[in-house]
Amino acid sequence: MRLEALRSAVLEANLELVRRGLILYTFGNASGIDRESGFVAIKPSGVPYEKLQPRDLVLTDLDGTVVEGALRPSSDLATHLLLYRAFPAIGGVVHTHSEYATAWAQAGREIPAYGTTHADYFYGPVPVTEELTADEVGGDYVLNTGQAIVRRFAQGNAPLDPLAVPAVLVAGHAPFCWGVTPADAAHNAVVLEAVARMAYYTSTLNAACTGVAQHLLDRHYFRKHGAGKTYGQEKN
Amino acid sequence: MRLEALRSAVLEANLELVRRGLILYTFGNASGIDRESGFVAIKPSGVPYEKLQPRDLVLTDLDGTVVEGALRPSSDLATHLLLYRAFPAIGGVVHTHSEYATAWAQAGREIPAYGTTHADYFYGPVPVTEELTADEVGGDYVLNTGQAIVRRFAQGNAPLDPLAVPAVLVAGHAPFCWGVTPADAAHNAVVLEAVARMAYYTSTLNAACTGVAQHLLDRHYFRKHGAGKTYGQEKN
Amino acid sequence: MRLEALRSAVLEANLELVRRGLILYTFGNASGIDRESGFVAIKPSGVPYEKLQPRDLVLTDLDGTVVEGALRPSSDLATHLLLYRAFPAIGGVVHTHSEYATAWAQAGREIPAYGTTHADYFYGPVPVTEELTADEVGGDYVLNTGQAIVRRFAQGNAPLDPLAVPAVLVAGHAPFCWGVTPADAAHNAVVLEAVARMAYYTSTLNAACTGVAQHLLDRHYFRKHGAGKTYGQEKN
Amino acid sequence: MRLEALRSAVLEANLELVRRGLILYTFGNASGIDRESGFVAIKPSGVPYEKLQPRDLVLTDLDGTVVEGALRPSSDLATHLLLYRAFPAIGGVVHTHSEYATAWAQAGREIPAYGTTHADYFYGPVPVTEELTADEVGGDYVLNTGQAIVRRFAQGNAPLDPLAVPAVLVAGHAPFCWGVTPADAAHNAVVLEAVARMAYYTSTLNAACTGVAQHLLDRHYFRKHGAGKTYGQEKN
Repeated sequence: MRLEALRSAVLEANLELVRRGLILYTFGNASGIDRESGFVAIKPSGVPYEKLQPRDLVLTDLDGTVVEGALRPSSDLATHLLLYRAFPAIGGVVHTHSEYATAWAQAGREIPAYGTTHADYFYGPVPVTEELTADEVGGDYVLNTGQAIVRRFAQGNAPLDPLAVPAVLVAGHAPFCWGVTPADAAHNAVVLEAVARMAYYTSTLNAACTGVAQHLLDRHYFRKHGAGKTYGQEKN
Repeated sequence: MRLEALRSAVLEANLELVRRGLILYTFGNASGIDRESGFVAIKPSGVPYEKLQPRDLVLTDLDGTVVEGALRPSSDLATHLLLYRAFPAIGGVVHTHSEYATAWAQAGREIPAYGTTHADYFYGPVPVTEELTADEVGGDYVLNTGQAIVRRFAQGNAPLDPLAVPAVLVAGHAPFCWGVTPADAAHNAVVLEAVARMAYYTSTLNAACTGVAQHLLDRHYFRKHGAGKTYGQEKN
Repeated sequence: MRLEALRSAVLEANLELVRRGLILYTFGNASGIDRESGFVAIKPSGVPYEKLQPRDLVLTDLDGTVVEGALRPSSDLATHLLLYRAFPAIGGVVHTHSEYATAWAQAGREIPAYGTTHADYFYGPVPVTEELTADEVGGDYVLNTGQAIVRRFAQGNAPLDPLAVPAVLVAGHAPFCWGVTPADAAHNAVVLEAVARMAYYTSTLNAACTGVAQHLLDRHYFRKHGAGKTYGQEKN
Repeated sequence: MRLEALRSAVLEANLELVRRGLILYTFGNASGIDRESGFVAIKPSGVPYEKLQPRDLVLTDLDGTVVEGALRPSSDLATHLLLYRAFPAIGGVVHTHSEYATAWAQAGREIPAYGTTHADYFYGPVPVTEELTADEVGGDYVLNTGQAIVRRFAQGNAPLDPLAVPAVLVAGHAPFCWGVTPADAAHNAVVLEAVARMAYYTSTLNAACTGVAQHLLDRHYFRKHGAGKTYGQEKN
């Protein structure tokens, strides 16, 4: 992906979040990476979305050194960069405080896979990180947020595939989502909020609900992903 | 209904779902049938609603063979076709993941007839299917979804009339609705979501609520249906 | 109020309900009365709001005989008429299935006076009627709905003043509201829905909440009503 | 701040509340103060927002004497004035009946600091006042509302800094917010409603949730406030 196209794609991903009602004021940010050069384009910090221009996007390398752009990058930059380093398959990252996903994060609860809408996008519960310790918060907080995410995906004897579960809830904070492109990451963030909303209602209607069976999870996930997919217009 | 008119009606039914906020991205689909020819028009799979043209709709026969159209039909086609075969009185089918109806489906709970809004459209609770087994999900899943619906309506010693209860919740999935025309099916899907929303609130406010009495159910349902109806401008 | 003005006011009250999101499809209706002639203007039955013209409104006398208009009056006419006969101070009646107020009605719960927003409009809880009996439903159902409302206001040793509590919930059905004019009735219906929504949230946050003290109820109600009012631009 | 600019800023703050959906009809009001002259500009009472012109704003001194303007000031004027007198650092005050914040006020519950969205704006729970006594309500009610707020901030051995916690819930009533300017006060009111909404969901999902740790509260609050801030484009 050339840098001009990257900028456009990242701007568009940011605007998609606004159009879909996930953003209040300047909350949230989307970024994208050009894997060839290793350059990342990200929203500047605290700039109103309605005024965003392609040239306002900040270009950095994977260490966070600004390569191009007059504005400060998003204050969440270090989390984005760590995710790009830890998850080589992803091409876009989105962070929002979308309200239902944030509520699950604040409640410290993973979002169970209650139905097929969830299964179409997330192959299992959307996990929640551990709370950051006082040391982690007092230290390089933004980087440590990324570390908590990466740790959560590596955890236990069955590490999670970031493309199979392209979202996480940071405990007491809010979701991070990603995808193979910035557009894909934004799309996943929008669907996550819808899934979080429906899961909230489901949990209220049936507190004992444990979610769909593994065979349904498999079926719906692989319906949209991988060689055997049957959804959409692409020929396999 | 001529095929041109069928296409228009199905396109319009799909767009009504969007206008009423039942659709996120490409989720959901509406179809219609011309009973004379046995041809069904259905939304193509994964195509954005805002770009839908009448010619994009896919025409199939009742066995699912594409008769006309360059695109793949909705991945839910087999469920639609089974409903047309099992319920000869219906002329349109709608599937959405509208959020409150989906939450009831995910919770595995039927929607009780809590009030007269419900009774005006659904003569009794909106039923929920059994969960599909691993074999059903692993086999012809989309067809088996339809079978679970048909089984639910045939169940017990008092089978349900599909026109008296023009909606069902597929457990762990989402609602299917129908009607005598595609427009009617879409209208029922919109009302189902409103009824599901009000039922959610009602259930929260009064968990012990059992819903309206049979005489009220009768009165409201027959007020809008059948020879004695007193609502609207049509003369009986 | 002259009949032309009455028609305009009733049309406008119907449209206000739509603008404020209280109406789905053709649900709901507003009417107004000219007390001098005793003529009532009401929405026709089942006509889409967006097509409503002043001439579509149906004019009847207080016995329900159509005086002018080519369309059938709202199927709820008999309830409106009974309210005009029983409550001589009111000049407009509104019926909606607005979702939160309807949920309280379906739950069979009065809306407690939880706060000052409520107290500014409703001098005490918004009452709920008894459920109608099978005989009442099987008989002149629409009239009997009005009778249940009137009975609820006359009930006990402290009958309610319809202008102090300009709304009621019909159990298992939905709210009726009224006011000194059609505009006032519509305004009260809009506020009732907001109050019902906030009461729903309040009840979830604090199930034991009993609502505001009598002195606060008095203060807020009389702030907006009666000779000592201090709100707005009118000079007393 | 010159008086012309004050009027503009106060008008704009009032309109921001409308744009963000915090206002129903004429509920709510925003004001601003010119600290040099001690003059306060406030919304007139009961005037529709869509008709508000700069010249409609009422100018008073800190004792409530109208200095300029043909209309009556907001009926909540005395609360605003007391807040300006008690909290010398603030330059704008906003009162709304925004629905989720009002629900917490009606429930008599403070809004816990459940997450970082909260911590970015409010350094600790959003407090709730005591209920006003019958004497306070029967006396100078609007002034006494202000007194209850001021008392709440002075309470205990750790008085609250109004700029660190720029909002309060008046029990059984609704929120008051403030800020260094009218725009800031309106912004805080909008964020408070979002925070109240997310806290409502969080509390439902996890009733035992106690909120974020002190170190996270510190980190997020000081990220946006004070000399060490790292958010936005301003250079420190």
